[in-house]
Amino acid sequence: MEYRRIKDQDKDGDAVGNDIESLPGKGLSVPASGSPSDRSKWKRKSIVTLALTVLTSSQAILIVWSKRAGKYEYSVTTANFLVEALKCALSLAALARIWRHEGVTEDNRLSTTFDEVSVYPIPAALYLVKNLLQYYIFAYVDAPGYQILKNLNIISTGVLYRIILKKKLSETQWAAFILLCAGCTTAQLNSSSDHVLQTPFQGWVMAIVMALLSGIAGVYTEAIIKRRPSRNINVQNFWLYVFGMGFNAIAIVIQDFDAVMNKGFFHGYSLITVLMILNHALSGLAVSMVMKYADNIVKVYSTSVALLLTAVVSVFLFGFHLSLAFFLGSTVVSVSIYLHSIGKPQR
Amino acid sequence: MEYRRIKDQDKDGDAVGNDIESLPGKGLSVPASGSPSDRSKWKRKSIVTLALTVLTSSQAILIVWSKRAGKYEYSVTTANFLVEALKCALSLAALARIWRHEGVTEDNRLSTTFDEVSVYPIPAALYLVKNLLQYYIFAYVDAPGYQILKNLNIISTGVLYRIILKKKLSETQWAAFILLCAGCTTAQLNSSSDHVLQTPFQGWVMAIVMALLSGIAGVYTEAIIKRRPSRNINVQNFWLYVFGMGFNAIAIVIQDFDAVMNKGFFHGYSLITVLMILNHALSGLAVSMVMKYADNIVKVYSTSVALLLTAVVSVFLFGFHLSLAFFLGSTVVSVSIYLHSIGKPQR
Repeated sequence: MEYRRIKDQDKDGDAVGNDIESLPGKGLSVPASGSPSDRSKWKRKSIVTLALTVLTSSQAILIVWSKRAGKYEYSVTTANFLVEALKCALSLAALARIWRHEGVTEDNRLSTTFDEVSVYPIPAALYLVKNLLQYYIFAYVDAPGYQILKNLNIISTGVLYRIILKKKLSETQWAAFILLCAGCTTAQLNSSSDHVLQTPFQGWVMAIVMALLSGIAGVYTEAIIKRRPSRNINVQNFWLYVFGMGFNAIAIVIQDFDAVMNKGFFHGYSLITVLMILNHALSGLAVSMVMKYADNIVKVYSTSVALLLTAVVSVFLFGFHLSLAFFLGSTVVSVSIYLHSIGKPQR
Repeated sequence: MEYRRIKDQDKDGDAVGNDIESLPGKGLSVPASGSPSDRSKWKRKSIVTLALTVLTSSQAILIVWSKRAGKYEYSVTTANFLVEALKCALSLAALARIWRHEGVTEDNRLSTTFDEVSVYPIPAALYLVKNLLQYYIFAYVDAPGYQILKNLNIISTGVLYRIILKKKLSETQWAAFILLCAGCTTAQLNSSSDHVLQTPFQGWVMAIVMALLSGIAGVYTEAIIKRRPSRNINVQNFWLYVFGMGFNAIAIVIQDFDAVMNKGFFHGYSLITVLMILNHALSGLAVSMVMKYADNIVKVYSTSVALLLTAVVSVFLFGFHLSLAFFLGSTVVSVSIYLHSIGKPQR
């Protein structure tokens, strides 16, 4: 393997000082000075954000399409495992290309230290717990209610971003974040949405715990990736996804062992399943890029805009009707984006 | 009559220069310095705003109560006329008290000049046109749809406040105003709200024209009242409501002449009708006070909060259920109020 070319495997210790707290706003601000470096950073940030938005939109559209085609026949855990494996493979392919052009350096070598790699399993473990909880929450909440409660992720991400990454949001940006959550929820309202108000206490607790788990996982991933700013993102992804594969293998054993043993790993897979796996893998890579070059806040805005885009595209693809609630929610989300952009904290 | 005591009836010409444009923000700002005068202004502003909020809430509750009691049996135009007459009488009573204590001065004498009084019929005339249009809009929109479209008033008031009174709102305050409109509409959403999206073009045009008429009337009233800051508000009210009585008399002739002739002026009046007239008169006086000591923006916020208060009170009074849309709308309205308060324009 190519990573054996590396001679010194322990010299990235110098980068440890460059942790997230000592890099306030690095790579996050729109270029004010307009220097070429700032402009290229801003361009890179815009491209990965756009990619995430488009991929998330098409993801939701694939889900609608697959639901119209019939019930999920395949096991979700095997699909999740394949998504992680594909992301791993794509990261390795990207690395191979970089090694060919630039040679193996301190920053792009695959080998790692215990200090660097020890934190990588944490996000994958959090997602595993969250995915396992997901099976139990449906005892208390129906699926449309769960979609509504998932908007709590927005608030939990903002709070954890502040607490864990110790980054400041201005008063206006906090207001914008609350609006983003309210706007997204409003856009999703339908005649049965009020059921969610009858959610029992246990359901609320689980929804909040799941929002926190998902928020911690997201914010923690950003912390890991930004901790070593000069480290190649593909190496960071490789290690994140290796643990992702591992934890998803555990999920297969816990949840779908019998089904996989009796019916086979690929039972029920169709063209659309393959497209969904491909899309999820690319979205996952885009999320990592957004974490590296932007942040969790940008990620939340990007996926929220994707939610609205999906609805608009569904009008053309599936003949959906847009509700008044959708227009109102979209207005609130748009104002939220505007307020977030004008409300940067004074430094 | 006591206003005959005045000797010189034409000396308020000096105040003309103090028109609204030369008084940017007068009496509008929260006390920063904390001087006794600022504090008492702020207190007065708060009291009139609170009074308007409480009166508007109880107004909506009386309407719900009267609807539950049965159909409107009385003629709305006669009730409107009585509201104006009552406001006139209350203003005169307040003036009589002031004259007894302070004597008749330049500022509180009832007699007026053509220059002062010539603009007073305009708001009343605009409201008359708006009320007449109201009968025709129901050819295109149903009543719940009309309630939704009435939220356009919020936007029109903001735009006209900027254009006619030439007062600045900051970017954040504009965003807050759009949110107030979206939030109020969201709070009112119900299963039949989507009908409003099928409103024909003529219906939209009429709704926008009505919103503009109502906005111009409100902003114009503020301009009239603030044009002479030292003039006693009760005198200003008296003249506004005299013309209000006149134009409502015209409305009776146009719309309900036959009914009044055949069934009598007070046909169908009940205790609740009397309470509603009393409430409308007091709310009207509170609106004038808010125009004098605060502004149209405060009025719009005050009546929007009243809308939310009404819904909460209705839960206890009438066993209403609050919808998820109501909670989301209330959240957006609350954030809007917060943003309006932190987003004051930099001077």
